[in-house]
Amino acid sequence: MAKTDPRMRAAAKDKLAAPAKAIAPREMVSPSHASARAEQERPAVLQAPTLPHTRDGTDGRTRAVIDAVLPCVDGGRFAVKRVAGDKVQITAHCFTDGHDALRVVLLWWREGEDARHEVPMALRYNDEWLADFTPPTPGRYAYTVLAWVDSFVSWHQELLRRVDADDIRLAVRTGALEIAAAAQRAAGEDRATLQQWARKLEDEAMGSRMDATELKTLALDEELTAVAQRHPDRRLETRFAADLPLVVDRERARFSAWYELFPRSAGKRAGVHGSFKDVQSRLPLIAGMGFDVLYLPPIHPIGREQRKGKNNALITEAGDVGSPWAIGAAEGGHKAILKELGTEADLRALVAAAQENGLELALDIAFQCAPDHPYVKAHPAWFKWRPDGSVQYAENPPKKYQDIYPFDFETDDWRALWQELKSVIDHWIGEGVQIFRVDNPHTKSFAFWEWCITEVKREHPGVIFLAEAFTRPKLMHRLAKLGFSQSYTYFTWRNDKASLTEYFTELAQGPGCEYFRPNPWPNTPDILHEQLQGGHEAMFKARLVLAATLAASYGIYGPAYELMEHLPRGPGSEEYLDSEKYQLRHWDWTADAGLRPFITRINRIRAGNPALHANRSLRFLPIANEQLIAYAKQSDDGANVVVTVVNLDPHNTHSGWLELDPASMGVESDQPFQMHDLLSNQRFVWQGARHFVKLDPQRVPAHIMVVRRRLRNEQDFDSYQ
Amino acid sequence: MAKTDPRMRAAAKDKLAAPAKAIAPREMVSPSHASARAEQERPAVLQAPTLPHTRDGTDGRTRAVIDAVLPCVDGGRFAVKRVAGDKVQITAHCFTDGHDALRVVLLWWREGEDARHEVPMALRYNDEWLADFTPPTPGRYAYTVLAWVDSFVSWHQELLRRVDADDIRLAVRTGALEIAAAAQRAAGEDRATLQQWARKLEDEAMGSRMDATELKTLALDEELTAVAQRHPDRRLETRFAADLPLVVDRERARFSAWYELFPRSAGKRAGVHGSFKDVQSRLPLIAGMGFDVLYLPPIHPIGREQRKGKNNALITEAGDVGSPWAIGAAEGGHKAILKELGTEADLRALVAAAQENGLELALDIAFQCAPDHPYVKAHPAWFKWRPDGSVQYAENPPKKYQDIYPFDFETDDWRALWQELKSVIDHWIGEGVQIFRVDNPHTKSFAFWEWCITEVKREHPGVIFLAEAFTRPKLMHRLAKLGFSQSYTYFTWRNDKASLTEYFTELAQGPGCEYFRPNPWPNTPDILHEQLQGGHEAMFKARLVLAATLAASYGIYGPAYELMEHLPRGPGSEEYLDSEKYQLRHWDWTADAGLRPFITRINRIRAGNPALHANRSLRFLPIANEQLIAYAKQSDDGANVVVTVVNLDPHNTHSGWLELDPASMGVESDQPFQMHDLLSNQRFVWQGARHFVKLDPQRVPAHIMVVRRRLRNEQDFDSYQ
Repeated sequence: MAKTDPRMRAAAKDKLAAPAKAIAPREMVSPSHASARAEQERPAVLQAPTLPHTRDGTDGRTRAVIDAVLPCVDGGRFAVKRVAGDKVQITAHCFTDGHDALRVVLLWWREGEDARHEVPMALRYNDEWLADFTPPTPGRYAYTVLAWVDSFVSWHQELLRRVDADDIRLAVRTGALEIAAAAQRAAGEDRATLQQWARKLEDEAMGSRMDATELKTLALDEELTAVAQRHPDRRLETRFAADLPLVVDRERARFSAWYELFPRSAGKRAGVHGSFKDVQSRLPLIAGMGFDVLYLPPIHPIGREQRKGKNNALITEAGDVGSPWAIGAAEGGHKAILKELGTEADLRALVAAAQENGLELALDIAFQCAPDHPYVKAHPAWFKWRPDGSVQYAENPPKKYQDIYPFDFETDDWRALWQELKSVIDHWIGEGVQIFRVDNPHTKSFAFWEWCITEVKREHPGVIFLAEAFTRPKLMHRLAKLGFSQSYTYFTWRNDKASLTEYFTELAQGPGCEYFRPNPWPNTPDILHEQLQGGHEAMFKARLVLAATLAASYGIYGPAYELMEHLPRGPGSEEYLDSEKYQLRHWDWTADAGLRPFITRINRIRAGNPALHANRSLRFLPIANEQLIAYAKQSDDGANVVVTVVNLDPHNTHSGWLELDPASMGVESDQPFQMHDLLSNQRFVWQGARHFVKLDPQRVPAHIMVVRRRLRNEQDFDSYQ
Repeated sequence: MAKTDPRMRAAAKDKLAAPAKAIAPREMVSPSHASARAEQERPAVLQAPTLPHTRDGTDGRTRAVIDAVLPCVDGGRFAVKRVAGDKVQITAHCFTDGHDALRVVLLWWREGEDARHEVPMALRYNDEWLADFTPPTPGRYAYTVLAWVDSFVSWHQELLRRVDADDIRLAVRTGALEIAAAAQRAAGEDRATLQQWARKLEDEAMGSRMDATELKTLALDEELTAVAQRHPDRRLETRFAADLPLVVDRERARFSAWYELFPRSAGKRAGVHGSFKDVQSRLPLIAGMGFDVLYLPPIHPIGREQRKGKNNALITEAGDVGSPWAIGAAEGGHKAILKELGTEADLRALVAAAQENGLELALDIAFQCAPDHPYVKAHPAWFKWRPDGSVQYAENPPKKYQDIYPFDFETDDWRALWQELKSVIDHWIGEGVQIFRVDNPHTKSFAFWEWCITEVKREHPGVIFLAEAFTRPKLMHRLAKLGFSQSYTYFTWRNDKASLTEYFTELAQGPGCEYFRPNPWPNTPDILHEQLQGGHEAMFKARLVLAATLAASYGIYGPAYELMEHLPRGPGSEEYLDSEKYQLRHWDWTADAGLRPFITRINRIRAGNPALHANRSLRFLPIANEQLIAYAKQSDDGANVVVTVVNLDPHNTHSGWLELDPASMGVESDQPFQMHDLLSNQRFVWQGARHFVKLDPQRVPAHIMVVRRRLRNEQDFDSYQ
């Protein structure tokens, strides 16, 4: 074959002279091939049964590979979770064969909207491409990645490295063809510019006015290059196989402090059933402590059949109020309000008053029925029946829960059941409630939750669901994947340094971190851990600090915790003695009673330090004492670094050497830095990587220190107090 | 609602009396519901736009969840790799809501065959279910998992835990309904047995002859239970979302020892071009050393245009033979044989002779052309053309490879190109070749490889492809995912203890271990690592031991390694001086020359110890000396444990304390065990967890010790020598 094809040269020149004519770039590069292809005989093998094809039917000439797009939960089966206004960072593993240049773009959109947004991705290293986007409002989004081998950029990058004059001259002619092709894809001014550039390059490369260096400069012109790059050839673009779903919540889903309260015990006098109005009068105190979610156990009529007495007794006494989780009686079920608590108007007033106090009301969703719940008569098909004609109550032999009828999610009437249960949530949303704590979601069908939460959030993307599932790890994770915004954790039973370290490292950095948002509680009405049963103030404080600083969301079962309620129903039991679950209690509501001032301080520290508003940055720090646990968190921008040290032993003072690399906090290793303990208001000037720490639990069992990179004046402190 | 429904009781009795009548089990449990459902009003919410549905359209009553099936590569996009006759262990993460019992089965089949095989899976712990299967022959298989909530097993398990007599009596009646339903699903003898059992249970539960204990015993009867379990209700079965692909190879894909040889230098006299016949005469020596794959660089006519001279010179001298990778000349291309090597008959004779010696011939697939390759004229569309009418040669500016024309995988004629390239492989398969070493696969389209390898293996499942890609990690992994059976590695550049440990841990246990089979080479014709350039025998031996024992497959570029060829082309170069790539060489073919006896011993040790036939079990052992690296491997059954210690320093004797927990090898911690060094034939009796090791590189730089759990007599040794 001749080294120079005169037809080729003539054709190329011709095209630059008449650039308005549309020319396909591939044919411009080797116009002689069209005829060569037409003339050549097809090889006999084309008749074979396995004709060349790609696995997914895309064009076989597609050479860009997108091997992975991250984050991604189970290949895109489930959504990643983020918060509106936060950057979503996307990584894609992209490459192609050989040395050609790739261009990669991130594509994102809000589900149900037509607008598609493209963000160019930048190559970091090791074929990892990076871009981010910021979803503006809560809702369901999706993203994927596109990549193509870019012949213009490939040409440009090769030209940069070319040194031989003949090579440069020939490469410039190749570039002229690339640019002419880009002109065909452009319109208006860009088109004219590119046509002119292409013509000029071809003319100069073929002439003798310019030497190779001048030619190269003209061909690499930055401005013109930018114009050409606006019109890439994307016909052989690769699209990642999956559109990855993203659930965007409002900030409270990531950062929240929950307070649980039984309205029945919020009354002003002992023995009198509390009401929504009473709760309303407690709002300033609760908000003053710095909580932002006020969660109430079920507020519905309580079953009378099989009602449990005080301390879960099988026999009730006169006046026994029963468990709020035994939902439903003749007067109503899941959409009704227990008349002692008040009316719908009272509830709406409470919702409004809470909002005025910076608090949000969270209701309990417990999808189960007392035997006298109206559903049992109206929808017998939703329950399991026994051969004796009775309804199957909840049981885990030999344990029996005769006051609870579970729904039968295998009912033929499942569609009506699902619809009705969702309508319960919709009902309370209608009353102004946007947060739900879901009782034992793992004993209801998983498929139901996926549908229900997705549908509720489609209409109300700001709604938050907390999964109260204290069950096996894979079930807890599945619930989070299916849509629960936050999840209860094993925190209550993680009590020593090793297990706390392992568990919270997993929560912060394990695969679940894309969808599982932990909400640890040091106590709940069901769980008074043995550690608290000693009633040691230091232990109550230590567990609170751990929950509040290890996780961005946490909660307490309030009055009982603040007042250090610690007596169990019996030896070995985690149940509270005289639990509010079965009876009225009367609490001390004085503002500075018990741990309230301490809790107030902790919540202020949380509010003032963005490092504590997310989980991903958590890192445990070495400290050679089994009773001292230390960890650091920092804000996304690195500006706020909080180091917490907790003494896990409520009895003894402990000390140790904390290893804290100043460089990890942006401090030069030879510079001093101030550690400001926001609990004690003490300030320590540290230098180097090893620091002595000592904690007397009788004073305060923790340091929560903010790192001050420069020694600032005292005034700085106030903003964090 | 009445506690007892007389209609229900009558219906149940009636059915037990006339069991041959077909009854749907769900309606048997509560026959009253059908009418209740028919009468009840549908709630208004059913009119809402978001009617209840599951994400994938399955029945909403489906309660079993299959959260994961492992192993799984990229959600099933790529195949897991295994070997025929080896157990494939499958884990599934399965659970359901609440306490009901699950049954889980593994489903596997060979692609293209109708037969489906079910294996019951057993619950291990943490909701992980386990089963295995053994694919009998090489080919493409698939597997997935099915699970269902089993009402019979749930009932059975609850009954086991029931203690209350009334509860037992009522539960037995429920069981009678379950068993009657199972009878409806059964046929023949099973049906009759179950009908009888159900009738008996109902009668006795309603009567007074049997007490609760006797009733329970009858209801838990093991044999009858087994019959009922054969007929489960699988109507609400869940199937895992993906069928996961599995490529099953023959054993050589997992365990192989490669020997590379340039036939051009296999001649009997210096300066005379070697031939297939010469290679044939070397087979006993190569097989005698214990290799099982003999790999030859390209055997095709070599281009004359732009041919490279000795040591890659741009100008050739008379008689220069050129690089075998510059494929194709007027007389033929990828399907032709260089006439100096012999004829097709000679090749077939070589293939046959190799086989007789226990060796398999591997050919090189290098999809690129010399300028005078017939393809260039016959298929101009398969190449890129430059504006001056010349073909674009391979280049990475400023480097140029004018003797190599790459294919243009973006050609419009890609289908014909793919078909023709595949036909090259098919051609050599037709000549009896079943193993291919593919040159630089990462510079050819990834989509092509996926199609080509899949199609070749569909017809010839025993074919093995080794990817010669020394490129970036993600590209190497992608090639392995797409189908390459084995992959070259970075081993050559992993030279110190830390990097060897990190790299081989990743290869053995990282995510790639399901599809990436490493084949490390201490040298190749392209890579003479600086470490070997000193020519130290200890270093040659150490690198060989590392490759041969760290990985189940390894290879050497033979004569050069055995004879410790070590001079580079120039300072800083990894190229061999006077490389066979560009000229003939003449080697010493004496059986005991150079390292041959040592290599022979290593390969015998490999052959005799199943621990060295796979990679997954590799564990590095602590030994406090940076120049000593130690690791253990064991066979699947744990019977064969090999501990290797290598001195990485070719100059100095090193010693250290090796930490080796006897329990990890199945030895009681207080028992002595024998370590038999198969290299030196020394035997050490060890006890406890710390053992002194000392290696003098001038004698032998490694221990390869097999653990003998009991002190056996000397004869045992022979089988491993």
